[in-house]
Amino acid sequence: MSSRLIDAGYSLSVYNRTKSKGEAVVAKGAIWCDTPRQVAESSDIIFTIVGYPKDVEEVYLGKDGLIEGASSGKIFCDMTTTKPSLDIMIASRLAEKGAHMADAPVSGGDTGARNGTLSIMVGCSDEVFQALLPCFEAMGKNITHMGPVGSGQHTKMANQIVIAGTMCGVSEALVYGAQAGLDLEKMVATISKGAAGCWTLDNLAPRVLKGNYEPGFMVEHFIKDMGIALEEAEKMELPLPSLALTRQLYLAIKAQGMGRKGTQVLVKALESLKGKEIL
Amino acid sequence: MSSRLIDAGYSLSVYNRTKSKGEAVVAKGAIWCDTPRQVAESSDIIFTIVGYPKDVEEVYLGKDGLIEGASSGKIFCDMTTTKPSLDIMIASRLAEKGAHMADAPVSGGDTGARNGTLSIMVGCSDEVFQALLPCFEAMGKNITHMGPVGSGQHTKMANQIVIAGTMCGVSEALVYGAQAGLDLEKMVATISKGAAGCWTLDNLAPRVLKGNYEPGFMVEHFIKDMGIALEEAEKMELPLPSLALTRQLYLAIKAQGMGRKGTQVLVKALESLKGKEIL
Repeated sequence: MSSRLIDAGYSLSVYNRTKSKGEAVVAKGAIWCDTPRQVAESSDIIFTIVGYPKDVEEVYLGKDGLIEGASSGKIFCDMTTTKPSLDIMIASRLAEKGAHMADAPVSGGDTGARNGTLSIMVGCSDEVFQALLPCFEAMGKNITHMGPVGSGQHTKMANQIVIAGTMCGVSEALVYGAQAGLDLEKMVATISKGAAGCWTLDNLAPRVLKGNYEPGFMVEHFIKDMGIALEEAEKMELPLPSLALTRQLYLAIKAQGMGRKGTQVLVKALESLKGKEIL
Repeated sequence: MSSRLIDAGYSLSVYNRTKSKGEAVVAKGAIWCDTPRQVAESSDIIFTIVGYPKDVEEVYLGKDGLIEGASSGKIFCDMTTTKPSLDIMIASRLAEKGAHMADAPVSGGDTGARNGTLSIMVGCSDEVFQALLPCFEAMGKNITHMGPVGSGQHTKMANQIVIAGTMCGVSEALVYGAQAGLDLEKMVATISKGAAGCWTLDNLAPRVLKGNYEPGFMVEHFIKDMGIALEEAEKMELPLPSLALTRQLYLAIKAQGMGRKGTQVLVKALESLKGKEIL
């Protein structure tokens, strides 16, 4: 994403806890900073994308964090998938300094980031959205202004909730088909053309059939996302039984040491219930 | 489906328990029969498509049923979505008389049937498949020979298992998004372009947003299909926790008097858990 901003003509100051991860963009002309605070001080627009909500807290609110470098007119944009309530809280802290906030989680994975084809779901004011749009256009294709701060995250949660459902459906169908003795490639090809058609069947089922469980999108991160969605839903007093079950099955995957595999490894949780390898 | 066979130049003898349902094709030249047996006696190829496994049993094995009219060389093809084991048993009863059997459940709904765009998942011998293919081509577009008798039904079960997952994911995402105050049309448009993309999001979510819960595909029939899949899976000693949960949520829909609505009415089960209208 940094690389694409440089290609689009922007000057970048960059920070990462793991300095080596910045080397490629520094080689392309980005200026290395030793703290998030320095990035904020030397930039007009500041993008963050980290792992977990605790990392968002650290990079914004921690010692030498972004908020220490914030001042009037600067725009901060958190592209991490994190708690809507956390980005809303950070927005209010930034507002005290006259700075602006957007939440803009993405979907599309490593490939989307490299190719500039990310979907970007944005929550902020109209003015901030217009200011950020040229940068978003350097990073993504399907860019939607969903509403105020927090609504980008809520949209990403809805996205993950749908994916949780399709992952269960596709995984259970694969183990069922395998146990029934079907030709699974034929099965996937046939059912994907009708009402069962989905991205997961097109993109992840073929990986399962090749025994490829590498990420793609990592189980640990999906567990985090589903946890956030369930926590937010609980705040709204909204039971989501299917999402809760799906997260439990992924916790089984993690318990079995496969937390860093791709989400398509869910079939292995079903195999463990059966007590033997099926696929 | 009968109408399309007539349009393709076939002569038809037809039977339905509800005679009025046959009137349209009789008006187009089909010959009315008073029993399934008469249809079998006067036809070379016999197609059946009814509601439930008990109806399949009745039409094949009951008094004046198809088996009574079966004789050497005739081909029977059950297009009902039913138990694989039932079609396999019927196949063996027909084989005793030198007659052949195929199972060929479809997907694509009323619209697919009318337009000849059904997906047809076929289980039978190669010879029977070749004999049936011209008829299938009059009724559908995506026609796959999956393997021996029963494998058409198993493929349809896999299809329904995927749909169960996508229905849960989409329904939970819709109530989540509504509770979070998102613009749901924008939300659906955005997430449908990425990894959450699925037929259900494209075709059924818009109906929910318009408050349209008419079938499409009826809850009662989906409950039947999921019941068959769970029963078959249990025979294979294969736990399918997500499918089991989904069926329970649809049983709640039926309990609330909505068994003849379309499957998109699943959002109402989530509303009933929440205890108030959300959408």
